[in-house]
Amino acid sequence: MKYKTLDFSGDELKLLDQRKLPLEVEYYNCRTYLDIKFAISDMIVRGAPAIGATAAYGVYLVALEYRELEKEDFIKAVKKANEDLLSARPTAVNLYWAIKRMEGVIDKNKNSTTDELLRLLLEEANTIAEEDIITNRKIAAYGNEIVPEGAVILTHCNTGSLATVDYGTALGIIREAHYAGKHIKVFADETRPRLQGARLTAFELLEEGIPATLIPDSVAATLIRDGKIDLILVGADRIASNGDTANKIGTYMLSEIAKRFDVPFYVAAPVSTIDFDIMDGSEIVIEERSSEEVTHINGIRIAPEGIDVYNPAFDVTPAENISGIITEKGIAGKPYLESLAKFK
Amino acid sequence: MKYKTLDFSGDELKLLDQRKLPLEVEYYNCRTYLDIKFAISDMIVRGAPAIGATAAYGVYLVALEYRELEKEDFIKAVKKANEDLLSARPTAVNLYWAIKRMEGVIDKNKNSTTDELLRLLLEEANTIAEEDIITNRKIAAYGNEIVPEGAVILTHCNTGSLATVDYGTALGIIREAHYAGKHIKVFADETRPRLQGARLTAFELLEEGIPATLIPDSVAATLIRDGKIDLILVGADRIASNGDTANKIGTYMLSEIAKRFDVPFYVAAPVSTIDFDIMDGSEIVIEERSSEEVTHINGIRIAPEGIDVYNPAFDVTPAENISGIITEKGIAGKPYLESLAKFK
Repeated sequence: MKYKTLDFSGDELKLLDQRKLPLEVEYYNCRTYLDIKFAISDMIVRGAPAIGATAAYGVYLVALEYRELEKEDFIKAVKKANEDLLSARPTAVNLYWAIKRMEGVIDKNKNSTTDELLRLLLEEANTIAEEDIITNRKIAAYGNEIVPEGAVILTHCNTGSLATVDYGTALGIIREAHYAGKHIKVFADETRPRLQGARLTAFELLEEGIPATLIPDSVAATLIRDGKIDLILVGADRIASNGDTANKIGTYMLSEIAKRFDVPFYVAAPVSTIDFDIMDGSEIVIEERSSEEVTHINGIRIAPEGIDVYNPAFDVTPAENISGIITEKGIAGKPYLESLAKFK
Repeated sequence: MKYKTLDFSGDELKLLDQRKLPLEVEYYNCRTYLDIKFAISDMIVRGAPAIGATAAYGVYLVALEYRELEKEDFIKAVKKANEDLLSARPTAVNLYWAIKRMEGVIDKNKNSTTDELLRLLLEEANTIAEEDIITNRKIAAYGNEIVPEGAVILTHCNTGSLATVDYGTALGIIREAHYAGKHIKVFADETRPRLQGARLTAFELLEEGIPATLIPDSVAATLIRDGKIDLILVGADRIASNGDTANKIGTYMLSEIAKRFDVPFYVAAPVSTIDFDIMDGSEIVIEERSSEEVTHINGIRIAPEGIDVYNPAFDVTPAENISGIITEKGIAGKPYLESLAKFK
């Protein structure tokens, strides 16, 4: 993509401010871990893989902040800040995964000097970011295999360059199929309440010149019923060992309609999104976000004052509704407990 | 409701401007049939029964405009204007029904003076409006019978006082159950793209003091799956002879999820919404509305310029997904071809 989702240099993480797209292209600069925490919780950066890479740099910035402390206190302070960073968003497991991976560097190099540790942490954060791009390319290559020539693809939320370090997961597959000259067309759900489909996916698809149509979320069901969708591709925020998948609210609904009308429904995500510590979707904590996301749009109130709101950010799609899970290590099929375990 | 949806006096129809609710309570004054046509097509007034009553006054205003013409020319001019009025919105059959009923008055009284005709037309329009309130009360009474004590009810779009002359259809039933002390609770879909749920239904429910929670449309599926919804009540814009029902986009999706999890799914509408001229839903014209409804909110662009949009205002729910159709003449059950015919 023309714009980088995240860019680290000079001990500063520049994040493309996704709250302002597509109308304004602006970067948000993070110099401290609290900047990072705010950027994640306020969704300046979003998308499970992008959150992971951002958090990795966050851990480095934490370490940088505490570099003057004695080694033991330094490690304690960093881990405490990491706990805090972890609370920024509860559902995307990549946040946890990235922080744990960064802590692994600390644990393995306890005897190094703080300067050496800082160097290693920055190296690891850079590796996480670089790996994400390679991972997405591999997901795209595997995913492209299941995209038929001329396919009309439905997607939900944003799973593109903006949700990752670059290229994207589900939208990466769409990119790949487009580059392969498959003459695909895309329907993009607008994805209330944050409108990532209308704001971000539409932006990326237009930039790529991929034929795309934006729809309100509740239009998808009739398109599926009427045989107008050949394939559904979505991302994931956390996948349980059995394949149950937490993803943006509205994904579950699509999966039910897809199953009813035998439309292939695939999840695309890096292996880092699989949470092997949990058995099924019932263990996934679903983040509830503020009512203002529903009652206000662009800061303007649309619903009357005083109305209660229920605003879960994600839902869980049961494994049985998923045709396959596309990762950088291949496409997992049912039963997922076995097929996903091979990627561990 | 505290505010009247429509109010006719002094040869002027005042319409509560539903584009501006809930933030501003303002009336839009119609003095000509073109005012009426604009009010219907721009959704200053919406909801099938309210559109019907508005159109009836529209026909009277047409007649008033042409009162100076010779009788034969007068009738021709009125009917031509009616054709034009009819094109304001294609799906809601109540528009057609009301105009035809008004034309019936002209046809039956061709030999009356123009002044007498005008008097009869105004009388008929008033009757249509008054009957709508009585009809809604009857729908509410029948509908209340199927509402269990303590029911949690999911509703879509706005089917309240604002969608009718007063009281409402599906929301009229909710009112009735609330007045009957049944301790009901309501989940209201926000209903993209026009947000009638967030703007209008939330407004009416708050005004009545009925416990209510607003949700993005794609949250409904998980609530239904998780057993949190006891009953789904929606309105209708056109019902075919076999029970297939056109209603606000998103209704069909709800009906599929409801069927999947055995949650009762009822349609509430006056008999005037049944189009006995068509056999099934395939004959219903679905209105497509402007892309700006999706790309802009409150006049502010949210999607990037140049993105294609598909914005159907309605979808068709197949009769098999509907548990019953609640009318002022009773509740029709399957098979609807027989049960609805009895209401003819």
